[in-house]
Amino acid sequence: MLDLVVYGSVAFDSIKTPFGKVDQALGGSGTYAGIAASFFCKPGIVSAVGSDFPTGEMEFLKSKGIDLTGLELLPGKTFHWKGEYGLDINVAKTIKTDLNVLENFKPVMPEKYKKAGFLLLGNNDPELQLDLVKQMGKRPKLVVADTMNFYIKSKRDKVLEVVKEADICLMNDSEARMLFKTPSLVEAAKKILEMDSNLAIIKKGEHGALLSTTKGSFVAPAYPLEAVVDPTGCGDCFAGAMMGFLAKEGNVGEETMRKALIYGSTVASFNAEGMGTERLRTLKLPEIEERFLEFKDLVRF
Amino acid sequence: MLDLVVYGSVAFDSIKTPFGKVDQALGGSGTYAGIAASFFCKPGIVSAVGSDFPTGEMEFLKSKGIDLTGLELLPGKTFHWKGEYGLDINVAKTIKTDLNVLENFKPVMPEKYKKAGFLLLGNNDPELQLDLVKQMGKRPKLVVADTMNFYIKSKRDKVLEVVKEADICLMNDSEARMLFKTPSLVEAAKKILEMDSNLAIIKKGEHGALLSTTKGSFVAPAYPLEAVVDPTGCGDCFAGAMMGFLAKEGNVGEETMRKALIYGSTVASFNAEGMGTERLRTLKLPEIEERFLEFKDLVRF
Repeated sequence: MLDLVVYGSVAFDSIKTPFGKVDQALGGSGTYAGIAASFFCKPGIVSAVGSDFPTGEMEFLKSKGIDLTGLELLPGKTFHWKGEYGLDINVAKTIKTDLNVLENFKPVMPEKYKKAGFLLLGNNDPELQLDLVKQMGKRPKLVVADTMNFYIKSKRDKVLEVVKEADICLMNDSEARMLFKTPSLVEAAKKILEMDSNLAIIKKGEHGALLSTTKGSFVAPAYPLEAVVDPTGCGDCFAGAMMGFLAKEGNVGEETMRKALIYGSTVASFNAEGMGTERLRTLKLPEIEERFLEFKDLVRF
Repeated sequence: MLDLVVYGSVAFDSIKTPFGKVDQALGGSGTYAGIAASFFCKPGIVSAVGSDFPTGEMEFLKSKGIDLTGLELLPGKTFHWKGEYGLDINVAKTIKTDLNVLENFKPVMPEKYKKAGFLLLGNNDPELQLDLVKQMGKRPKLVVADTMNFYIKSKRDKVLEVVKEADICLMNDSEARMLFKTPSLVEAAKKILEMDSNLAIIKKGEHGALLSTTKGSFVAPAYPLEAVVDPTGCGDCFAGAMMGFLAKEGNVGEETMRKALIYGSTVASFNAEGMGTERLRTLKLPEIEERFLEFKDLVRF
């Protein structure tokens, strides 16, 4: 039985940061979110890879308890992203994006995924995101959708439909400003709430995240890391760990939500400590719990 | 008897933001910091104004309990800054800076200021900042220095001397990255600590502030405002309220410091609600105390 469906890419990443370099390494939003969620619950991934995808990495994902029924094996090459980060490590510069097998991929929800209570829609074409919600057997308890500036520009109306359909929309600060044409993140969050979302979460990268409800706000700081080695996938880890914890708790009350954001920040901070998925591969739950507690001291006054 | 000496400009500001416009309004880092501090302690300002400075504004500053013995009246015009903010309201675009009477101003510490226990050095020429520390009768209990990118570029060695001399150096995130040539704010903070500062505080604008000590970190969030009307002076309000609270408490222990940062965030958030000093003029201590308590709920998990 599955707790959480993660729709997001499983990919090869070639990354260069001031601190390291990896080539054709395991990556993709579905991979990061799936691994992050796997510390808390049983996730399954909906995506596709090509015939060049290594069986070793399949086995690795399975070893984390991730269900791969929804990961289609298609003829052709796996999605490949090549990017670089400079001194301002928060800004990724995309060198190349080869969609490959994902170019015309129409995701199909496996039967065993249709009763999952939690659905995380990674940033992707908003029409595909909407279609996947329809494919679920029953409306999940919680649908969280990530979005990205590319679709805000090209399919603004559809993105707004996703905001309306999803319970929580994840955006980063510049996306929220762009979508709602306002300099104020709090005003953007308010507009999300007005559109029938119960909660709005705005991701602020190295500055953490802001949760807004109709009752008030919660600020989840980012963990102050001495060295961000590679921020690739941190946003996906944030979303995945958050959803994983919510799925484990089985409720989406505000108190649980606050803790979920801190778990999101925690796993994202670990992820940034290594190139690609390197740090996630050795990460253990007790380390996550220890850092979660450190956040208490970080904000105490 | 004075608690706190504030060295910073008293100026005219002409400001345009997406939400309003003021012309030749009272401004300057010394003004904002002085008013913010005045809610907590007795501050005095060291600066100079020209003969065009309105007596009404002098009276206003005095009515806030600010000592103006150190505010010299010089022949000529008052310092004037003209700036604009766009949709990304965190970034000021300077249209014009007329130094006027501040061009060759050599600040002289009045006798009655020399025994103050707290000294706030607004962002200015680091050589003048260093000179003012020497002018104090005895080493104050706490010297806090603000800095700015202009001097990091033109007088890097002197800025580093200020970092060494001051107990706390206030920098914003891009200044810290620039001064220490690192993408990591935590690493920048660590380098400040290594230079014989007890504490490092990095201001992150709308994202709050990060306090680092040799023992650990504290994250002070910014208050999530629905509408930032005008961010001018928020950094100065943060510094002024922080110093004012520390001067009132008379100690600089970590627990007091954490509260001081939250008071800094609180007064800065009120300041952003109005054009220029507008909101500060009507602000009352009970409003500050109420919002200070709201921060507890903002970070609770």
